[in-house]
Amino acid sequence: MAKQADILVRFGLRVRRLRQEQGYSQESFAYACELDRTYVGGIERGERNLALRNIERIANTLGISISELMEGL
Amino acid sequence: MAKQADILVRFGLRVRRLRQEQGYSQESFAYACELDRTYVGGIERGERNLALRNIERIANTLGISISELMEGL
Repeated sequence: MAKQADILVRFGLRVRRLRQEQGYSQESFAYACELDRTYVGGIERGERNLALRNIERIANTLGISISELMEGL
Repeated sequence: MAKQADILVRFGLRVRRLRQEQGYSQESFAYACELDRTYVGGIERGERNLALRNIERIANTLGISISELMEGL
């Protein structure tokens, strides 16, 4: 059985999917989150081990709870 | 209306409650998570803006998903 992808990769894919579903470009999403665009790119590529405050910021921008953001991960 | 407590404080209280429900002391829980006991104390007091990998470690030790760990926050 294939090893489950790293949590950072799974989280990044989840963020990308939800962002796209809401019609945000990476740039407009970063702006709405008040995060740097390159930082958001790094998150979506699974390169950032981001912490609770930024996780909350992303959930708030998407209008969902942190629990919903983490669903299926 | 009172301001909602900071995400770090809410997360810390949630971890403490779940840990106690499962009968862990702070020390035995830290050991099971392979985290330092003082670090776990800081998490429970809402002093640590902890990142995804350690959040996953705590969820795994509790035997729940990250989404469940974040429920109600």
